[in-house]
Amino acid sequence: MEVQQVLHMNGGVGDTSYANNSVVQRNIISKGMPMLEDAILDLYCTSFPEKLSIADLGCSSGPNTLFVISHIIDTIKKKCHQLNIPLPEFQMFLNDLLGNDFNNLFSYLSDFYEKLKEEKHVNLEQCFVAGVAGSFHGRLFPSKSLHFIHSANSLHWLSQVPQGLQNEMGISLNKGKIYIGKTSPPSVFKAYLAQFQRDFYLFLKSRSEEVIGGGRMVLTLCTGRSSDPSIKECFFHWELLAQTLNDMVSQGVIEQDKVDSFNLPFYAPSIQELEAIVNREGSFSLDRHEVIEIVNFTSGQNVAKLIRAITESMLADQFGAGILDDLFRRYEHNVDVYLSNEKAIIINLVLSMTRKE
Amino acid sequence: MEVQQVLHMNGGVGDTSYANNSVVQRNIISKGMPMLEDAILDLYCTSFPEKLSIADLGCSSGPNTLFVISHIIDTIKKKCHQLNIPLPEFQMFLNDLLGNDFNNLFSYLSDFYEKLKEEKHVNLEQCFVAGVAGSFHGRLFPSKSLHFIHSANSLHWLSQVPQGLQNEMGISLNKGKIYIGKTSPPSVFKAYLAQFQRDFYLFLKSRSEEVIGGGRMVLTLCTGRSSDPSIKECFFHWELLAQTLNDMVSQGVIEQDKVDSFNLPFYAPSIQELEAIVNREGSFSLDRHEVIEIVNFTSGQNVAKLIRAITESMLADQFGAGILDDLFRRYEHNVDVYLSNEKAIIINLVLSMTRKE
Repeated sequence: MEVQQVLHMNGGVGDTSYANNSVVQRNIISKGMPMLEDAILDLYCTSFPEKLSIADLGCSSGPNTLFVISHIIDTIKKKCHQLNIPLPEFQMFLNDLLGNDFNNLFSYLSDFYEKLKEEKHVNLEQCFVAGVAGSFHGRLFPSKSLHFIHSANSLHWLSQVPQGLQNEMGISLNKGKIYIGKTSPPSVFKAYLAQFQRDFYLFLKSRSEEVIGGGRMVLTLCTGRSSDPSIKECFFHWELLAQTLNDMVSQGVIEQDKVDSFNLPFYAPSIQELEAIVNREGSFSLDRHEVIEIVNFTSGQNVAKLIRAITESMLADQFGAGILDDLFRRYEHNVDVYLSNEKAIIINLVLSMTRKE
Repeated sequence: MEVQQVLHMNGGVGDTSYANNSVVQRNIISKGMPMLEDAILDLYCTSFPEKLSIADLGCSSGPNTLFVISHIIDTIKKKCHQLNIPLPEFQMFLNDLLGNDFNNLFSYLSDFYEKLKEEKHVNLEQCFVAGVAGSFHGRLFPSKSLHFIHSANSLHWLSQVPQGLQNEMGISLNKGKIYIGKTSPPSVFKAYLAQFQRDFYLFLKSRSEEVIGGGRMVLTLCTGRSSDPSIKECFFHWELLAQTLNDMVSQGVIEQDKVDSFNLPFYAPSIQELEAIVNREGSFSLDRHEVIEIVNFTSGQNVAKLIRAITESMLADQFGAGILDDLFRRYEHNVDVYLSNEKAIIINLVLSMTRKE
């Protein structure tokens, strides 16, 4: 699987689109807002630049993207009003991989500009939006060209499925699982961690070239540890997806080999793992972090739609698009059963960092 | 017709796509290259900036767009090699209206970066591409943020169909024609010119805010005057399209009213008309201009494909998509007949301008 080609949220605005199934992500973004507000205001009030260059990395293609931008503008506008100073110009860059539906993303712009003008009374000659297609594991912007970076729900995606998930004979070490499971051997955990370390290091290295000294980043991504001991399983959605695929194997609908060789390019690090990489790379200081727990998973249908919008491109690549409807009907049922017994949760970390001078 | 919604070259990469039917435009761009090279080198060698910010306005969605960018990089690279200085960073903005197929445009980027690296040995960390969706008749970029602007085959498109093409009773003044024809009354010509004057003035005004003092623009657009007296008709492609539509009216395939009320949002100015607007706006000096004549129209099929890729969205909006195959079959035939008797030509102007300090 070529992750750069295959990993993208479902495009368009249909029933299975990411645009229509990203309420949970919106929730995560909202809960990270206070830290985002603090960081952008700290940055702005240090030097009051006439132009703020801001990038949203892994923006995907839905209303959430412009929601973040809109909130940043609101925050700065309030401060300018308090201080009785003119609003700066905003240059907003929206980034995601090449396969992202940028056409759909841009189609939200008319409404966005309309609201900016009518509701927020922001002059349209003060906010400029551009789309940037490419991987944030490499360079995306010129040197020292950005003041602020935001990224939510993206950095837990790896640039590739980790190597080392098979033994020397080519036999899967992670049979029947699609991510690190409770019964995965330590070598699987090690391979995933190593890939995340490489990817996050490259992310920081690239951003260190692009962000000016004193510039800020606010990053939100999945983590795998809950402080609540009643939570048995932080990745119930992946566990249940693996279980559903295994059910389909045992009924002869899909091949065992296909499931054994399928592993998600996903890793949810601990704060300690993140801190270690930030310190090793050395360009950013980690100012604050916060844990966000999202628990509002109300029905199998909602979870199935969410997970389908996120994983459809990868599942179709591995198993063929033909099995998707069947797979997600079964998955929906399995999630409903799970939700009737267990508390379902997704845990995220918000990190606030400063580019050292 | 909401031009901003309806005007866009055909997306995708199919038989009727702009991407596959833009050889004539490529030809026009190529002939403008010497003036583009002179302008970008003049600019670069005045101050040798470490970063060059460049915008291509009305880039559409095909290989031509990256062809221009690629040529600019080549030109600067050659100069840097001569002078034994490091290559600057390039920030390239690709702009077109919201309806443009940016997904298709971005899909060319992998190949583009590959060639940059393999063939031109340009480090990928030196060229950054972003897409900007919006009308160039308004602001698109922050103040004083661009060094260089290129626009080809776009500025002859108006922001709207001119007002005043009907009399007080709502009756069309341009019956049976879709652009200024030989028998159009002076009021039609006047309405078209007035709209172009407004649009080009707004274009210059917006760019004057965005381009730094000493920054340059190279613009290529259609003009309506040939120095060759043997050329009867500079807009044979529009005349024949009107003729084909009228044929279909007389055969009852489409309604007379629909043709009478259809007018292209297109104007091909003279150099004198352009100069007058540049002088009135006042921010740019017009350094040079050149006339480019394109004559290689070899077959009705090629012309039909080209004109369909450009006009399909507007024709479908007015007449319904159902008539398009029939229309362009007839059109192809009419062009073949025309080409057997007449020399077919499209005339363009290339303008080179400098933002006054």
